[in-house]
Amino acid sequence: MELTEHTTTAAVQASFAATPDDRLRTVMTALTAHLHAFVRDVRPTHEEWEQAIEFLTEVGHTCTDTRQEFVLLSDVLGVSALVETINGDEAGATENTVLGPFHATVSPPRALGDTIDMLGEGTPCVVTGRVLGVDGTPLGAAVIDVWQCDKNGFYDVQQPDRQPAGNGRGLFHTAADGRYWFRTVVPSHYPVPDDGPVGQLLHATARHPYRPAHIHFIAEAPGHRPVTTHVFVADSPYIDGDTVFAVRDSLIRVFAESDDAVRAESLGTTAPFRHVEFDIVLAESDGTR
Amino acid sequence: MELTEHTTTAAVQASFAATPDDRLRTVMTALTAHLHAFVRDVRPTHEEWEQAIEFLTEVGHTCTDTRQEFVLLSDVLGVSALVETINGDEAGATENTVLGPFHATVSPPRALGDTIDMLGEGTPCVVTGRVLGVDGTPLGAAVIDVWQCDKNGFYDVQQPDRQPAGNGRGLFHTAADGRYWFRTVVPSHYPVPDDGPVGQLLHATARHPYRPAHIHFIAEAPGHRPVTTHVFVADSPYIDGDTVFAVRDSLIRVFAESDDAVRAESLGTTAPFRHVEFDIVLAESDGTR
Repeated sequence: MELTEHTTTAAVQASFAATPDDRLRTVMTALTAHLHAFVRDVRPTHEEWEQAIEFLTEVGHTCTDTRQEFVLLSDVLGVSALVETINGDEAGATENTVLGPFHATVSPPRALGDTIDMLGEGTPCVVTGRVLGVDGTPLGAAVIDVWQCDKNGFYDVQQPDRQPAGNGRGLFHTAADGRYWFRTVVPSHYPVPDDGPVGQLLHATARHPYRPAHIHFIAEAPGHRPVTTHVFVADSPYIDGDTVFAVRDSLIRVFAESDDAVRAESLGTTAPFRHVEFDIVLAESDGTR
Repeated sequence: MELTEHTTTAAVQASFAATPDDRLRTVMTALTAHLHAFVRDVRPTHEEWEQAIEFLTEVGHTCTDTRQEFVLLSDVLGVSALVETINGDEAGATENTVLGPFHATVSPPRALGDTIDMLGEGTPCVVTGRVLGVDGTPLGAAVIDVWQCDKNGFYDVQQPDRQPAGNGRGLFHTAADGRYWFRTVVPSHYPVPDDGPVGQLLHATARHPYRPAHIHFIAEAPGHRPVTTHVFVADSPYIDGDTVFAVRDSLIRVFAESDDAVRAESLGTTAPFRHVEFDIVLAESDGTR
């Protein structure tokens, strides 16, 4: 059959018909439909097609062990946020949000109450909370993986010369009553890395590269579905304009200021400090994952 | 506004609203719509999203100065063929087909009648033809860029240790009467490079990696639209199953066998040889490109 603008899609889909894995066949068939629809919609010139190839190649070449430019591309196109939304419909559970491109290293195990700040710069902050089931049961065997940027908006992997590896990161086990607590500094809002091809795209489309201040969490517990999420700082710039579309109202918390020296000492820090309480609720696993 | 599965797309499109370049805004708005529709359609799990990120990263890391894995991905998904079809609707002109991933080097300038074969292996072949306007006017100032694989199905850039750079490639100027002619060997059908991530995709989807035998052409002439095309060998395996969907009926030619020693000598080759005649018709430029 002669291939035309209107028969090519069916021919490509037919080429995937013998795919042994049902799910892969479904995905490739759908990808072909949507990708071809995009091409027929915008009708790219040769030059535009070449620019697209060059852009994707540059994104690939920008990926290293500590930088994931394709995750960043997925983030700024809202694809990561959409995938989280699709996978985060567990009634009563804490909402998911994007993983982001900086979960590139293993967080160091730390004891409850430890600080994840190894620089000693910025506003002291205490983070407390509980990991709970949807019925309120404390989950005493939960693990939380946290990571955040420093007061200047940089993650450790972005500044290997200035920040010790593991700065701003920690892996904690909850206490028997489901509680966790650790010390840190208040994270800053920051621009996503904008010195690569994704940054060029943001610039060319007149988009700012900023994210509001947040701390990343992955929480897991036996028999429960893990959650990848953030807690956002309520008074942060860009809380209404995150360039990766990750803010959820349910994840915004006031990081309350305190001058109470006695309370500070009881929490192992010094006044003035800020404090945030962030409970994480996990749905039970349905046994399929 | 809280972002949900159904409001995220509009929010991402709104982020592109201030793009200064109208065409870029159109493309990014359409890309967001189609990409999000794909995600909502297949509803990827986190693990599947991570697999997609890893696949794209691997494709990027496989691209080098002499290998273009993103072009190959575009090819096997039929996107390249679709782009050619969309851009090749000039009435009366030779049909476009895909550029392919091997136009990575500059073809060496050669004189009419020269051979592009620097190995001396395979069946001698003479290629002749004319470059013409759609009204039949010979185009005496045309340039044709040709490239092809050797008798084993490999391009020079794939075998830098065995093939001299420029083997199978040539840049020719047509004679005053629009004619061109050069000597070569009959190209082989061949597998696209299948030792990388695109090859893994073909394998996982039970697709063969083969292309039917062909010679690539780019023809250009002043005042005319250039054409990127192939001439296909009519009796080649896979002529009905090109893995990159590039075959067009109008581009298939018989490479006729001949034992005529006198004719061979007049063409500067030796019998037995094969001969193909391939006229290329260019549409006039509309002044926009």
